[in-house]
Amino acid sequence: MTDTVDMDPAGTAPATSRRREATRQKLLDAAAQVFAEEGLDAASVEAICERAGFTRGAFYSNFETKDELFLELAGRVARARVQSVRERVAMLERDGRLTDVATDALAVVQQVLDVSGDDRLAILLMSEIRIHALRDPRLGAAYLAQDAEMRESVAQIITDIAEAKLIRFRLPADEVARLMLTVWESESVRATMAGLDYAAVCRRTGEELARVAPLVIEV
Amino acid sequence: MTDTVDMDPAGTAPATSRRREATRQKLLDAAAQVFAEEGLDAASVEAICERAGFTRGAFYSNFETKDELFLELAGRVARARVQSVRERVAMLERDGRLTDVATDALAVVQQVLDVSGDDRLAILLMSEIRIHALRDPRLGAAYLAQDAEMRESVAQIITDIAEAKLIRFRLPADEVARLMLTVWESESVRATMAGLDYAAVCRRTGEELARVAPLVIEV
Repeated sequence: MTDTVDMDPAGTAPATSRRREATRQKLLDAAAQVFAEEGLDAASVEAICERAGFTRGAFYSNFETKDELFLELAGRVARARVQSVRERVAMLERDGRLTDVATDALAVVQQVLDVSGDDRLAILLMSEIRIHALRDPRLGAAYLAQDAEMRESVAQIITDIAEAKLIRFRLPADEVARLMLTVWESESVRATMAGLDYAAVCRRTGEELARVAPLVIEV
Repeated sequence: MTDTVDMDPAGTAPATSRRREATRQKLLDAAAQVFAEEGLDAASVEAICERAGFTRGAFYSNFETKDELFLELAGRVARARVQSVRERVAMLERDGRLTDVATDALAVVQQVLDVSGDDRLAILLMSEIRIHALRDPRLGAAYLAQDAEMRESVAQIITDIAEAKLIRFRLPADEVARLMLTVWESESVRATMAGLDYAAVCRRTGEELARVAPLVIEV
């Protein structure tokens, strides 16, 4: 998204429109950092502009309010999460690795979640989105829709595994996906809170998923 | 805690000290509401004072800063959560209901969690504490300590059940407790986000716990 060439491959958009889009993206990137570090309420438009290297004028020609930017950012983060899981699933399917695994089938789910395993900034940002989604029905609906989409992507892997008949699950795919995602989210938050670095957060989350995964496999 | 008689049964404390404690409690109660509704950063000292019916002078004679009050409140909420689970466990043990159950042993865990099942305000406040615990190492350590204490209380029930040999679990008690608490927390947040009322939040969370519980029981 930060590459304006991708967004206008034929180069038909006027240069001003491409420049405008680049500014918008830089403001969104800067805001993601400031929101994650300070929270939505404490983050000022000034701090976002300073981080992005723009004036307040540039901000207000792109977004009416800080909340509008936050809503767009929340949508972008959600789409990126779902997209990265989808791409990972497609890659594993292409490589035949979804039907090729036996006892470590759940390692596949683990791998899929690992790749979208988010760094500290993303974990902070998603938590910030979560608390505001609890207070604002519009954000709440968006959060739950993303949650459902994410679950669907993970459930698809689980269904593929089940259909290959190598492993049977004790719960419907949707429920297995929900459980894995819940454990993943909660463990990555706890590990981040404990001050672990990103590699250690991934390791800890992976260990916890590996502990829970056997529970859902039919013996 | 709001009953000053409990805190000074012999009536030995001077009246001013009891009045001071009552003021402090009212400020904490009011702050819990304002923080849950608006978030820590957006909540002003003025709004807390107005809700409590006190002047800013009363606030600052009790707390140096809003953050100091938040930290004390976070501790109070955490202790209340652990305490309500402990009391529930003691009650179930006294009634012999921990050894008396068979296939619905997990219903006991469910009951224990239900009773501390938190209303909308508590869910919002815990989420607010969680996000700040992600940013502030001091709060993070306090949050994780409360998390561990809560897990220990629930693990105690699970150990009691296991020792009664009516049911065997597929994971150590501590891991079962962690999983149940994770599912409970995450499902109550999702249900609250979906705008369900308190009774429906409890029902939804109970259903999800009932789905996961059989997974951890050795057949």
